[in-house]
Amino acid sequence: MDPDTAILTSWHANAANWIATIDHDEISSRVLVTNAAIVQTVLSYPIQSILDIGCGEGWLTRALQAQGKQAFGVDAVPALIENAIEKGGDYYAVASFRDIATGVYTASQPFDAAVINFALLDKEETELLLQHIRMVVRPDGYLFIQTLHPLVIAGQQPYATGWKEGSWNGMKRTFVQPYQWYFRTIADWVKLFSGAGLTILQLEEPVHPETKAPMSLIFVLQVMQE
Amino acid sequence: MDPDTAILTSWHANAANWIATIDHDEISSRVLVTNAAIVQTVLSYPIQSILDIGCGEGWLTRALQAQGKQAFGVDAVPALIENAIEKGGDYYAVASFRDIATGVYTASQPFDAAVINFALLDKEETELLLQHIRMVVRPDGYLFIQTLHPLVIAGQQPYATGWKEGSWNGMKRTFVQPYQWYFRTIADWVKLFSGAGLTILQLEEPVHPETKAPMSLIFVLQVMQE
Repeated sequence: MDPDTAILTSWHANAANWIATIDHDEISSRVLVTNAAIVQTVLSYPIQSILDIGCGEGWLTRALQAQGKQAFGVDAVPALIENAIEKGGDYYAVASFRDIATGVYTASQPFDAAVINFALLDKEETELLLQHIRMVVRPDGYLFIQTLHPLVIAGQQPYATGWKEGSWNGMKRTFVQPYQWYFRTIADWVKLFSGAGLTILQLEEPVHPETKAPMSLIFVLQVMQE
Repeated sequence: MDPDTAILTSWHANAANWIATIDHDEISSRVLVTNAAIVQTVLSYPIQSILDIGCGEGWLTRALQAQGKQAFGVDAVPALIENAIEKGGDYYAVASFRDIATGVYTASQPFDAAVINFALLDKEETELLLQHIRMVVRPDGYLFIQTLHPLVIAGQQPYATGWKEGSWNGMKRTFVQPYQWYFRTIADWVKLFSGAGLTILQLEEPVHPETKAPMSLIFVLQVMQE
């Protein structure tokens, strides 16, 4: 099975596990640091409308709506979108990165921004999405990406871009069908952004409140005029 | 003694030690990885003239000249500039970051680029220099910065911007008057660049050839039109 198919297949299979994990706040890094970090970073920019890409069960879309934003969420996994609609109303649609990049998914007008929270897990579909982010974000609009901090990996594995094991490590519940995910060094993230016409405005490295270890990396990018 | 004075005082005091260290290739990370990395990165851009800021005894200026570039070096330590001139001719001048930023140091015309190789050791003078890099680099010109990779520190100390000990650690010779140096997280480097009107074009993370551990960070920046 190619890695992209494996990723989505696993998420389909684990949808209920994932919903329960989020509902019960079982990922402590999210509760302690990274949920607040992405919300605060988004709110610090002049944005009205925002598309939450890979929104899952919708927590971030709801959080941004609670702060007065016109937020809308898309995800490739129907069971997650069903759950998001149950929780928060009809502000969600089923769409993959490819659907967005190719215009299969369309919005009535481009958003001021898009946010992708820990949802860039592969190589090709990520590149496709970023290269075509203008399909959903207006010129001079923003793109927020939160991803695992490379430092978290680098202690245990060679610091090199490539596919890595360990997708469901640390989960409390029994997740099935682990998949490989595509790790990028910071240099390779930067190369990806340059190639996609995205300018880096800001970088955040949210840290653990006690150990001060960096937990994630947030890139704030601007979608340049073509 | 304020930290900036301490840095320059230490370098003045250790000039002969430093020259011997470089002459004898005693810093293995430089020999193995980082010297080549900065030279190759600079050469991959369309540059004719380049200012080596904090050039020390001049190895990088000489290396770039050997590759056909019009390279010129400046350093605040007279003993190092004397040695550079002895080795490579009259392509060097004594100048501090402040001299550059305030126009005390002037070139006949702006350079296509500047390179700062492991010479950004403090807080204030670094900020001043970067904010005024247009004094020596033309609009749309390049700025190359190589610095210790934050990962190298983060294993041993909290990952937080601030003054750190350990300036002469790992040297073979007995260096005197250790000073504190100013560590920045990657996020804070990015904030510094944004604030100075510098766009990130590329990021390199040269790694150790066997362990693949990242040894340094190279930023390639573009000096935006004002």
